[in-house]
Amino acid sequence: MSTHTLEEILRPQSIAVVGASGDPSAGGRNFTTALLAQGYSGKIYLVNPKYSEIMGSKVYPSLKEVPGPIDYVISCVPASEVLNILESCSQKGVKAIHLYTAHFSETGRQEAAELEQRILKEARKRGIRLIGPNCVGLYYPQQRISFGDDLPKESGSVGLISQTGGGASNLIHLASLRGVRFSKAISYGNALDLNECDFLEYLSQDPETKIILMYIEGVKDGKRFFNILRQAASTKPVIIIKGGKGKSGARAVASHTASLAGSVKIWETVVTQAGAVSAKSLDEMADLAVSFYFLPPIQGPRVGVVGGGGGASVLAADQCEEAGLDVIPLPTEVREELRSKGIPTWDWVGNPADVSVWGWSGADLGVGDTLQILARNRNFDLLIIFMREPHHRNEQRISAETYLEQYNLKEINQKPLLAVLPDKSLGINDYDDWRWKLMSEVRTQLIAANIPFYPTIGRAAKAARKLIDYYQKRG
Amino acid sequence: MSTHTLEEILRPQSIAVVGASGDPSAGGRNFTTALLAQGYSGKIYLVNPKYSEIMGSKVYPSLKEVPGPIDYVISCVPASEVLNILESCSQKGVKAIHLYTAHFSETGRQEAAELEQRILKEARKRGIRLIGPNCVGLYYPQQRISFGDDLPKESGSVGLISQTGGGASNLIHLASLRGVRFSKAISYGNALDLNECDFLEYLSQDPETKIILMYIEGVKDGKRFFNILRQAASTKPVIIIKGGKGKSGARAVASHTASLAGSVKIWETVVTQAGAVSAKSLDEMADLAVSFYFLPPIQGPRVGVVGGGGGASVLAADQCEEAGLDVIPLPTEVREELRSKGIPTWDWVGNPADVSVWGWSGADLGVGDTLQILARNRNFDLLIIFMREPHHRNEQRISAETYLEQYNLKEINQKPLLAVLPDKSLGINDYDDWRWKLMSEVRTQLIAANIPFYPTIGRAAKAARKLIDYYQKRG
Repeated sequence: MSTHTLEEILRPQSIAVVGASGDPSAGGRNFTTALLAQGYSGKIYLVNPKYSEIMGSKVYPSLKEVPGPIDYVISCVPASEVLNILESCSQKGVKAIHLYTAHFSETGRQEAAELEQRILKEARKRGIRLIGPNCVGLYYPQQRISFGDDLPKESGSVGLISQTGGGASNLIHLASLRGVRFSKAISYGNALDLNECDFLEYLSQDPETKIILMYIEGVKDGKRFFNILRQAASTKPVIIIKGGKGKSGARAVASHTASLAGSVKIWETVVTQAGAVSAKSLDEMADLAVSFYFLPPIQGPRVGVVGGGGGASVLAADQCEEAGLDVIPLPTEVREELRSKGIPTWDWVGNPADVSVWGWSGADLGVGDTLQILARNRNFDLLIIFMREPHHRNEQRISAETYLEQYNLKEINQKPLLAVLPDKSLGINDYDDWRWKLMSEVRTQLIAANIPFYPTIGRAAKAARKLIDYYQKRG
Repeated sequence: MSTHTLEEILRPQSIAVVGASGDPSAGGRNFTTALLAQGYSGKIYLVNPKYSEIMGSKVYPSLKEVPGPIDYVISCVPASEVLNILESCSQKGVKAIHLYTAHFSETGRQEAAELEQRILKEARKRGIRLIGPNCVGLYYPQQRISFGDDLPKESGSVGLISQTGGGASNLIHLASLRGVRFSKAISYGNALDLNECDFLEYLSQDPETKIILMYIEGVKDGKRFFNILRQAASTKPVIIIKGGKGKSGARAVASHTASLAGSVKIWETVVTQAGAVSAKSLDEMADLAVSFYFLPPIQGPRVGVVGGGGGASVLAADQCEEAGLDVIPLPTEVREELRSKGIPTWDWVGNPADVSVWGWSGADLGVGDTLQILARNRNFDLLIIFMREPHHRNEQRISAETYLEQYNLKEINQKPLLAVLPDKSLGINDYDDWRWKLMSEVRTQLIAANIPFYPTIGRAAKAARKLIDYYQKRG
């Protein structure tokens, strides 16, 4: 547990959902079902004068009628009702309100912006902290607090701070399909009270969080942000997406969270000088999260690539080199070892090594053995392995265990290892093809073996290079 | 039909597979099953002294024993036997041999390179043209000739010339999942006799081919290549990946097809000056193939984006702008029309327009209607629509038809339209979730409606920009 002041706010003993609803399309239902489905261990109070019961749970007509004390309120009521519930919150000893409620300054309308400011003033007067408005709030799997009933219940070491709620859910889904789990995620929308600096400071001190991801549209206090970011990045990797880099993005930011997008150049200087890592898209952020989550520090850029076909090996070399990796020629010792094992193409094979999953033709040496030889060689800083579905004519089904035995990846503990498995939505006819389900099982087993995987070698190489840069900067 | 000299070679009346095999792992089997499974309409002769029958088809012990004339031979025998079959081919009146046979100059071994040259000399003496060696040869769906029994049987208008066989299969699979069909694909490996220039010249004159894709590792005659490329690109889009751009890629190229990778700078100048389109990866090539296949010429870069969430809209704007599209502010006429339709957020909504698939909250206007409004506006040159799976809590299954009715995409015939559907390998638990199969069905229906789709907006925007540039250059 952290000693940061936010700790108390983010670990409430009781939560009230004001504006709870049974209507599937209402936001109130989202938070109600998420808390119930995830099994939040504290007290849950549903509040809405329109209902007496939702999904078997009692509903209170107002906050005042809730019997016990309330630590944390999720507000799903319209903007015009927020000032009213603030007063009740004060009486119930509420420490923080998460305002899912939206349509404030992001509308660009003066009266909405003024209402937002009145809410801030009232909250400050009463000593209540605000998360939002216009956000999905908190996902804290250990406490079973969530903004989505389909988010993983298991905890991990990645903390996320995000100015987009949809993007936060999307990123959690993307990263968790690849094995990443989260300590907590905070979506904070318009940042009326608590803002990116508060949450970043908190996560940087949070012992449950080893890696920090941020999606930011605007920064309220540049100097404070830089100082906290530098401090955070010196202790753990901080990966940032800046939304609103261009003209049109800045316009979109204004109507999304009413943030000032600011200058791209200043932003990039801040991130670089603070030692943080930039990402351009949620996909790249997922790649980086997966990389920092599963890989040890990579000491240098010298990469060995195994298992692509001929053309795939050529493009792999180009893409690794473009990303800033060094695809070194196959070391002499490796070549000699292949020769001593009777590989007929020992003088011909290169790096990338074009060896199929079934091993070398004409020799009893598998792709796994080849990987071992490369892994033992001190000239490589990291290895990348291509993995593909079995050939379509391979009628005999094999298990994920048998598939993975070919590669023997669990034994590669001497070297950082990245796997490339093509990402591919199924065509209608593919649902009956056992090979795709096999590959899903292979993914699950790779996660269990702590091996990160990527949809293309280009994405793997870019992520690896950013990892190398981060650790080199930290020294 | 083209009058090009290659036409006769690529439309054989009879094909002999020499080294045909029943062994699942043998290359001979690959071509045998591909011809049988695709239903090649000409005569197929299987040749191998080791078998009398394969999969119910008679096998001849040698070429000489084949009863009729043979136009085209697929050689799957070892390198050392090629000179022998050349003699028999000559006697049978063979016009061309596709040498699947490999282990020639690409091995870097002098005796192998010398053998390759002897084969060339003998073939020339006998007037036989060679495709390869070290390649998978021809895919010509209209003739039902194929190098893979799982490639589409239907024809289309994309021609592919590729120095990688695995990459060619991979690309055909990638592109066909997105609706592209091929006129013919030619994999030509070491380019000993027929080379990139011959095939490009042929496809540029081929009336069945409207778009040309090339994967090239090296060019034999730079000047001839430039002239043919310029000529080809002036009549149809030519999209090229160059393999072996960096040091390590050049090494990989040498051991793959024994090609000289050449200078990257000269290469880039050649492609640009000839008016061809560059791609960096097979994924990007698939994006470009899909774009040129389905989209009309796009007249300018002014894009309207619809259907992302708040954060997704911000990142969409940034990624479109970075790709060189112009995400113009929402035109006043559109805003006024939204106002007149009673959209409560008419003054607030921007471009990208953050409107969900279920339409505008508080108004009876769907995402499809909104798209129509944008499509009718003369300020937009193209539109991009985000499509996503239904919400996980949406328990009522809907059909692809119902799903697509929301969008009403078939009516958008005034504007080039690109759809963004996330690409996502299924997790083990996802196979039982109806929403993913729905999205596969949606993809199929988008193809039927001639609407291209892309896994990310960044990839859609980049492809659109290259399309715009191509047509602007052509004037």
